[in-house]
Amino acid sequence: MIEIRLISENEFKRVRAATIDKYKRLALLADMCCANALATVKRAGSGHLGSSFSSLDIVTYLYHFEMNIAELGVDHPDRDIYFSSKGHDVPGHYAVLHSLGLLSEERFQHLRRLEGTHGHPDVSIPGIEANSGSLGMGISKAKGMALAKKLSGAKGRVIVMTGDGELQEGQIWESLQTAAYQKANNLIAIVDFNKIQTDKAVKEIIDLGDLARKFEVFGWHAQTCNGHDFADLEKAFTRLKQVNDRPKVLIADTIKGKGVSFMEGPRALQDGNGLYPWHSGAPDDATFEAGYSEIVHRINARLEELDLAPLDTRVMATREKNRVSLKATAEKVVSAYGEALVKIGAHRKDIVVLDADLSADCGLRPFEKAYPDRFIENGIAEQDMVSTAGGLALHGFLPIVNSFGVFLASRANEQIYNNATEKTKIIYVCHYAGLIPAGPGKSHQSLRDISLFGALPNCTIIEPCNGAETEQALQWCVNHAEQNCMLRLIISPSPRNIALPDDYRFTFGRGAVVNEGRDAILFSYGPVMINEALTAAEFLQPKGISLKIINLPWLNKVDLDWLEEVSGNCEFLFSLDNHSGYGGLGDLLLNGLMSSPALRARRLKKYAVDEFPACGTPQETLGYHKLDGRSLAKRIAGEINKA
Amino acid sequence: MIEIRLISENEFKRVRAATIDKYKRLALLADMCCANALATVKRAGSGHLGSSFSSLDIVTYLYHFEMNIAELGVDHPDRDIYFSSKGHDVPGHYAVLHSLGLLSEERFQHLRRLEGTHGHPDVSIPGIEANSGSLGMGISKAKGMALAKKLSGAKGRVIVMTGDGELQEGQIWESLQTAAYQKANNLIAIVDFNKIQTDKAVKEIIDLGDLARKFEVFGWHAQTCNGHDFADLEKAFTRLKQVNDRPKVLIADTIKGKGVSFMEGPRALQDGNGLYPWHSGAPDDATFEAGYSEIVHRINARLEELDLAPLDTRVMATREKNRVSLKATAEKVVSAYGEALVKIGAHRKDIVVLDADLSADCGLRPFEKAYPDRFIENGIAEQDMVSTAGGLALHGFLPIVNSFGVFLASRANEQIYNNATEKTKIIYVCHYAGLIPAGPGKSHQSLRDISLFGALPNCTIIEPCNGAETEQALQWCVNHAEQNCMLRLIISPSPRNIALPDDYRFTFGRGAVVNEGRDAILFSYGPVMINEALTAAEFLQPKGISLKIINLPWLNKVDLDWLEEVSGNCEFLFSLDNHSGYGGLGDLLLNGLMSSPALRARRLKKYAVDEFPACGTPQETLGYHKLDGRSLAKRIAGEINKA
Repeated sequence: MIEIRLISENEFKRVRAATIDKYKRLALLADMCCANALATVKRAGSGHLGSSFSSLDIVTYLYHFEMNIAELGVDHPDRDIYFSSKGHDVPGHYAVLHSLGLLSEERFQHLRRLEGTHGHPDVSIPGIEANSGSLGMGISKAKGMALAKKLSGAKGRVIVMTGDGELQEGQIWESLQTAAYQKANNLIAIVDFNKIQTDKAVKEIIDLGDLARKFEVFGWHAQTCNGHDFADLEKAFTRLKQVNDRPKVLIADTIKGKGVSFMEGPRALQDGNGLYPWHSGAPDDATFEAGYSEIVHRINARLEELDLAPLDTRVMATREKNRVSLKATAEKVVSAYGEALVKIGAHRKDIVVLDADLSADCGLRPFEKAYPDRFIENGIAEQDMVSTAGGLALHGFLPIVNSFGVFLASRANEQIYNNATEKTKIIYVCHYAGLIPAGPGKSHQSLRDISLFGALPNCTIIEPCNGAETEQALQWCVNHAEQNCMLRLIISPSPRNIALPDDYRFTFGRGAVVNEGRDAILFSYGPVMINEALTAAEFLQPKGISLKIINLPWLNKVDLDWLEEVSGNCEFLFSLDNHSGYGGLGDLLLNGLMSSPALRARRLKKYAVDEFPACGTPQETLGYHKLDGRSLAKRIAGEINKA
Repeated sequence: MIEIRLISENEFKRVRAATIDKYKRLALLADMCCANALATVKRAGSGHLGSSFSSLDIVTYLYHFEMNIAELGVDHPDRDIYFSSKGHDVPGHYAVLHSLGLLSEERFQHLRRLEGTHGHPDVSIPGIEANSGSLGMGISKAKGMALAKKLSGAKGRVIVMTGDGELQEGQIWESLQTAAYQKANNLIAIVDFNKIQTDKAVKEIIDLGDLARKFEVFGWHAQTCNGHDFADLEKAFTRLKQVNDRPKVLIADTIKGKGVSFMEGPRALQDGNGLYPWHSGAPDDATFEAGYSEIVHRINARLEELDLAPLDTRVMATREKNRVSLKATAEKVVSAYGEALVKIGAHRKDIVVLDADLSADCGLRPFEKAYPDRFIENGIAEQDMVSTAGGLALHGFLPIVNSFGVFLASRANEQIYNNATEKTKIIYVCHYAGLIPAGPGKSHQSLRDISLFGALPNCTIIEPCNGAETEQALQWCVNHAEQNCMLRLIISPSPRNIALPDDYRFTFGRGAVVNEGRDAILFSYGPVMINEALTAAEFLQPKGISLKIINLPWLNKVDLDWLEEVSGNCEFLFSLDNHSGYGGLGDLLLNGLMSSPALRARRLKKYAVDEFPACGTPQETLGYHKLDGRSLAKRIAGEINKA
């Protein structure tokens, strides 16, 4: 068994009350938060450690020293505001909120759970001032708060943390120009300058150049400091207070993964041959224990030096050691995609693959290594990436553009539209499609992407349900599609391997039966929802309801003849979307039924994610939305019995 | 009668062949293009003169002196590429393409017409290299072309023109960072630094600061020149050729409206009390004649000085003088909106209005003047504007965010989503909704905005059909809505004043009959489509078909009881969207019918804009899409007769 331990609020009270040097206190508190952040991420099984750790000394300094929040409370109009624009550093932020008693211990320890805290900041959590997690929005939003304070006459500063890679986002530069012009002098940005993006050095993705000069030329007061030196932080903030005619930035020199020796940027990059492994994800058991004990030893050494009693921790969770996770054995459609990409790229020399700093997550590393000349790493600049693809397409190349769906379909939406009006062909791959994994939360779960591409008159949208279909889909997009394609892929391991009929051929507008049945038909797509559909069928069978399940990977085109044939005389049709109910497969089928005199009067019930996606484990989240197999079975049976 | 005259290609040939000083030749050619651009805009009745004129000397210089296009042709892989990122300067660009015979005279003279040229650049037009018109994308796309040239080994430079106000767009700064890092040294950006945005000086909207330093700190080689001095342009390009290790920018000092004395920036700003009147729109007859004769006199003086025969022009079109246009007398919903905003703003002190440099077009001037403290001019930075609104909303204000729908819904889509997840309330106003006016083309016509907001679970979408309903809609959004609202408004004068029943009350999810009928029901919304619907009813009446028309301003919520009541036993239901068929009113009704056992088997036929919107006059564009009253009547009769 391994134990995951928590440092309770009382321990923080003890340290806060102790008569010790102020900087030593801050160092102690920061280390204690560091341990707690690590523990909650380990318990959650995912989370962002590297960036939580690089920013933690600063966040500790702000809450325990600089800001008036502890004094005024989180609702006072004159409070200083702090939030993180990058947002993935939130495990560290939660730890600090907990250390002050602003966030309850019960909620704090359940990171990325339905009843706990979200994987990225959410204003429903006490002390969280803004939702973030998609990059580049924070300075703009902080500016809105700063202007609001001026309009209402409220006191207090607005302090927003950004990443360094995040500065590749264009919105940052919009906000710098306007904040300076609009004289938001109560606004402070802090750059957590840790020099590593998702898994590579910033300077190997898109170098930022001279950051201080950039801010200055955009009309900001810029200052640098050591983000792990509390005296230097105090000095920096003292100097910032003397500048009152413009917005201010503090570029804090930090170390990604700071506090756990083997997670610290330079060493970890070296150990990883240029790849930083601790941006996201929980460490395995041995690594966790090594890291945790390193922090606790340091805390105890500090306590001893200060003549304070050693640290008291309590067990928050225990678990069997070295559990084999699903990840190790399950199929991943994104891996199938990455392999297919290399295979196709070998003979299609016109293919250029574009990435926005998510190469590994999007399965692109094999292509990146095999054809470095035809791989464009564009940094966290989705709009620029998409328009760059537009230029390549106009000049005869076939660009394959990758990012998470929630970013690509949304952030670069107008650029995608502009490209589409040129009637070239581009393949957009929306990774991390749908509800699962639900731990990262709303900023990452993509449930609007079909609707964001849907009104383009020249784009075909596809989501495959297994590895083989993924390769077929990509082949179709590359070799057969005459227009733009949007390929939607889930990012997590498939919950089961979906078996397609032996004679299945990937055919435009047509799907395949993956479970035979007589009483009702459920149309769905993708590994996550087909799995729940199959589970629903298993629950329905003993109730005497035989559910036919159809995999229909075409999400905006359906072959009416096929639809009529496959629907037969069945009275009860259902659709299951891994997407909002607006604009997904359900609406496609509604339109199909209306277009067919034979099917017009048929009843179709749509199941989909009809609220903002919840944050939690896959099963609790599917359950929350009543889209897990058991709930679906109940809902389907209800519809049939009601009729 | 007034005559609109054209300078034919032969006259350009004559000047090109003459043995005269190269700079004087360029000045002549530029003036001749200037006259032609003015003439085509006058004939079209709309277009952008100010920016066509500020950039025209540069474009003339590029095509007639610097680039190899005239020599290699528009399809050669080694050709130099030129396009404009801002795109609204395209009347000038067309004039230059025509001057070289690259664009046929027949097509050139029909600006903004179905069989002519588009209001913003479109690659279907010979010599146009990229679609633009929405700002900020050009450097990215040019970078894609530049990288394509490197990948394929093609020669030639890629030259892209941007505006100065355009540099407020964040994507510009993304593209500057990546282009420098990716070493796109075959890429040249030219900034048409004319110092005026839509109708105000750039420095009064969002000042740009030291542009050259900004480009330099982003890793570019920056150079300045006089954009109206051909010798200086030649010198600048000679120097640019010596820099080969990075992308390059030429900041060309220009005068907006250059070439027509009263349109020239500084004077025109003064005459307009700080407002520049010549950004877009055609001049009236007297102004046109004054401007045109000024240019022709200058050309003839130049010709005489060079011992060349005077200019030969031919009549391209004639028209009655001082025609009264619809604009003068018709109702404008955007004006009703602007007035309502002031009225409501008087007692709702929490309202803050945000604008992205379209204040006059969006009807915001009255509010801007009445409550300057609660009006935020954010420049051309939609993403930043929306996130700023998010910050204001979190701190108790009610932001009303304005831009053209095609920009707001698309460019700022992820920011809108992020705000929505915070569950604050914001009102987004998507101006210039729908197909009409169709002259500006696809970059401006908004036919996807409903679909781009549709999957937000907490947003109500409304389009009113007349001035009174516009005020009621805004009142509802401000005073009754509990969630976000999206208000869609057309920008052109209403083609007729739509009469709503005397007892009409704006009620959630419900509409009103605007034309009684028995045989079929057509659901629609907004002044443009309700007008066509009424026309269709007029055409159908003599054919014995009585068409009931229902105005349903609620585009994503419908009251089922009302729908059942209003549908009665009618067998033929139709929907008419001023939007793509994907995700509009038609899909709302399809979902409504399916949810009602009484209506499930009813047939609904959707009419909508199912392709990219065409560019032309309102009637020819509506006709092209078969959405004019006459076509609708034919289609509806066809459906009824077929059944």
